[in-house]
Amino acid sequence: MHEDIIEKLVRRVIEKLIVYEKYKIPVGVSNRHVHLSEKDFKILFGEDAELTVKSKLKQLGQFASNEVVTIRGEKGQFENVRILGPLRETSQVEISLTDSFKLGIKPKIRESGKLANTPGIEIIGPAGKIQLDSGTIVALRHIHMTPEDAKKMEVSEGEFVEVQIYGQRKAVIGNVLVRVSENYSLEMHLDTDEANAVGVKTGDYAVIKKTMEIKDVSK
Amino acid sequence: MHEDIIEKLVRRVIEKLIVYEKYKIPVGVSNRHVHLSEKDFKILFGEDAELTVKSKLKQLGQFASNEVVTIRGEKGQFENVRILGPLRETSQVEISLTDSFKLGIKPKIRESGKLANTPGIEIIGPAGKIQLDSGTIVALRHIHMTPEDAKKMEVSEGEFVEVQIYGQRKAVIGNVLVRVSENYSLEMHLDTDEANAVGVKTGDYAVIKKTMEIKDVSK
Repeated sequence: MHEDIIEKLVRRVIEKLIVYEKYKIPVGVSNRHVHLSEKDFKILFGEDAELTVKSKLKQLGQFASNEVVTIRGEKGQFENVRILGPLRETSQVEISLTDSFKLGIKPKIRESGKLANTPGIEIIGPAGKIQLDSGTIVALRHIHMTPEDAKKMEVSEGEFVEVQIYGQRKAVIGNVLVRVSENYSLEMHLDTDEANAVGVKTGDYAVIKKTMEIKDVSK
Repeated sequence: MHEDIIEKLVRRVIEKLIVYEKYKIPVGVSNRHVHLSEKDFKILFGEDAELTVKSKLKQLGQFASNEVVTIRGEKGQFENVRILGPLRETSQVEISLTDSFKLGIKPKIRESGKLANTPGIEIIGPAGKIQLDSGTIVALRHIHMTPEDAKKMEVSEGEFVEVQIYGQRKAVIGNVLVRVSENYSLEMHLDTDEANAVGVKTGDYAVIKKTMEIKDVSK
């Protein structure tokens, strides 16, 4: 009888470890940041300015730049907000909901680049300033992965999944968007509110929640 | 056959509604705040000062005061941080993890009043300032309820439960401490990181997660 229980426990632990290995995803925490169009960058930093690389990000070609700006809403502002490169078609400001209260801006929770009907914001650089009419978002939490990762984890582009977080502030967070591309590296992006609420930092692991068949090993 | 499916769906919806009515809990979001001892209050506001009521809180006898202080860490400070009354035996500062990075303080996630080995902080008032040696915490998420609520929800004092949050940022948050007392009113306290991460505000509802037996209605 005791032998049975021990055997059962061992199997369950191993099954949990297999699930963990198969579905684990490193977390990347995004602080507030700005993406800029070339036109907007030139207004903010001058006609001859170039965006320079401070550090490479995990996603291919993406980098944190040395250049920072001030973002300003009706109620307040944040200084030293980093620009993430490379430059894009359209400028976009990503903040947390906590940030939004200080700024006095009511952003939408959106996938990057989906900026219709989002509020504007003022951006101030060393050479000038711009007023965006739209483009302020709270990033929809999401996972970047390769087609190989997606196959292994049995998920697909555009799917929403639940993700298990372990630790003192353990949680299962829902509505996490799966993004699949050959150019991506496996990484779940959370904003600072989300990361702090569940007590994770960049490099910690989370696990896509799949209900695994637990076989009846009592027989 | 179709009749069976409809009947099954109706039953499940009703069961879900019953669960919701039985286990729903209003959320109260706590911004950073301070509790003060009488001695510390007198140093900060003067010997003759009194703590005055700005607005009553949901928990019996608790109130937000008109009086505010500045809290300061090595890296930064927050002004206009509200004192919650009444005065207590020991001073305590409750912040979010997001706040902790700005202050440059590494707080522990703790139940209110459990301050051993927590970091200190400087508090500045209109009449003086104090340096707490300990007392800076991130509040452990918790639910206040009466013994009657506890009986209805089948939980008890000191138990940790999971709580379901609905909406665009839906989640199940774990390690939520249940606190039971005749003096309490039913309310789940989350800090601003937690509330923003799951997209709830004061007065929204969350639901203690209980696995309800779904009877097989196909028979």
